[in-house]
Amino acid sequence: MRNIRCLVEYDGTDFYGFQRQKGRETIQGCLERAVATLTGERVTVHGAGRTDAGVHAEGQVINFFTTSRIPTERWPYALNSRLPAAIVVKAAEEAPADFHARKSAVAKTYRYTIWNAPFPSAFWRRFAYHVPTPLDVDAMRQAASLLVGRHDFAAFQAAGSTPVRSTVRHLQRLDIVQDGPRIDIYGKADGFLYHMMRNIVGTLLLVGDGRRPPAWVGEVLASRRRELAGPTAPAHGLCLVRVEYG
Amino acid sequence: MRNIRCLVEYDGTDFYGFQRQKGRETIQGCLERAVATLTGERVTVHGAGRTDAGVHAEGQVINFFTTSRIPTERWPYALNSRLPAAIVVKAAEEAPADFHARKSAVAKTYRYTIWNAPFPSAFWRRFAYHVPTPLDVDAMRQAASLLVGRHDFAAFQAAGSTPVRSTVRHLQRLDIVQDGPRIDIYGKADGFLYHMMRNIVGTLLLVGDGRRPPAWVGEVLASRRRELAGPTAPAHGLCLVRVEYG
Repeated sequence: MRNIRCLVEYDGTDFYGFQRQKGRETIQGCLERAVATLTGERVTVHGAGRTDAGVHAEGQVINFFTTSRIPTERWPYALNSRLPAAIVVKAAEEAPADFHARKSAVAKTYRYTIWNAPFPSAFWRRFAYHVPTPLDVDAMRQAASLLVGRHDFAAFQAAGSTPVRSTVRHLQRLDIVQDGPRIDIYGKADGFLYHMMRNIVGTLLLVGDGRRPPAWVGEVLASRRRELAGPTAPAHGLCLVRVEYG
Repeated sequence: MRNIRCLVEYDGTDFYGFQRQKGRETIQGCLERAVATLTGERVTVHGAGRTDAGVHAEGQVINFFTTSRIPTERWPYALNSRLPAAIVVKAAEEAPADFHARKSAVAKTYRYTIWNAPFPSAFWRRFAYHVPTPLDVDAMRQAASLLVGRHDFAAFQAAGSTPVRSTVRHLQRLDIVQDGPRIDIYGKADGFLYHMMRNIVGTLLLVGDGRRPPAWVGEVLASRRRELAGPTAPAHGLCLVRVEYG
């Protein structure tokens, strides 16, 4: 058996997220079907991040086991010809047998894109969340700096999520880059709680539009109480940009 | 009667072009319907460029006459709430009675976007033409420089187009900007013949992939024969970026 690892990009707009679901188009479902039609094998495709419905990926990493002899460098061409245009395999390599796209990952980077202008953009509407109120990006940066580091992020976990062993995560980076009406928030961590990135963005937006001071975000973090943080920012602004391995 | 002039952006992917057509979604049709539901008036919306099916606009200019007293600055909000998300009115102003979006235009700028990488992009697939062969951008720039100026562009007019009074146009700019896998070709002229920009791009691509030398493009221009030029590049790479008035 060979363990094939691929780098995958997708526009998540028209999918019900990464994870396979009966009767619904998902990224995992499309990838598994593509492998099956190529090899005749029923495989499980593991993804580094199980992105939600509407979330995109520029650098999702997947792996699957196969007995197929398709040369490694041919996999992207072979899979792309059997995938919808919204999913693109950009690279493939053979990985060690113990490599697992999710379990072996040591860090992930997400980008959340905001379109901050009076009117939405016809081009960015699938990939950016439109916020018409002018945002104070400096205040958002101040607030973001309070979240960087190893902390208990329970306040930013999805309400009602399945209990996890620990809600402590190491947020290594939370940078905000502005380019005209476009604001990109990059978050890198050893792992993200469910909805953590979108809840952080929803919280920073309350600082950006002046409803809360930057220091309030530190209080929210310390409280560990989800109900004190801001609302979950919409899925379509989020993109998994990079997954790192040891 | 007031003459309202608007700046319009659209993702042309899901439309049958700008011009109104019975039973088909078009940009003009959507805009006229939006004005009609707002004002109760049947108006004709004039567009600076009658973009083809699949072509986009970042800076289309339109105008229409109305007796409505909606304040000028409210028009974008009022129209956007009645338009599909793929069409966005970005600005509005009251224009002199003799202003006509198409007839008053003195120059237009189009951008043609190429995605030059082994695999297509899931994000740019609606807005860029995927060319997997590595392109020689310097050779394309040399060829492009031969087209700049006032020339008879008959060789780059759509085959079988309705005869026009003159096929002489002043191409003021034909610049190629590269940013990683993305190549943008900007063309500015006092007017474009039907399919002229896409035929120029299709011709430059034959130079970019090494099938023709740059000087060949000068010969094609001088020949005035459409059959000597390259194929028409696909519509979805093209975007009307700017219209200028005197």
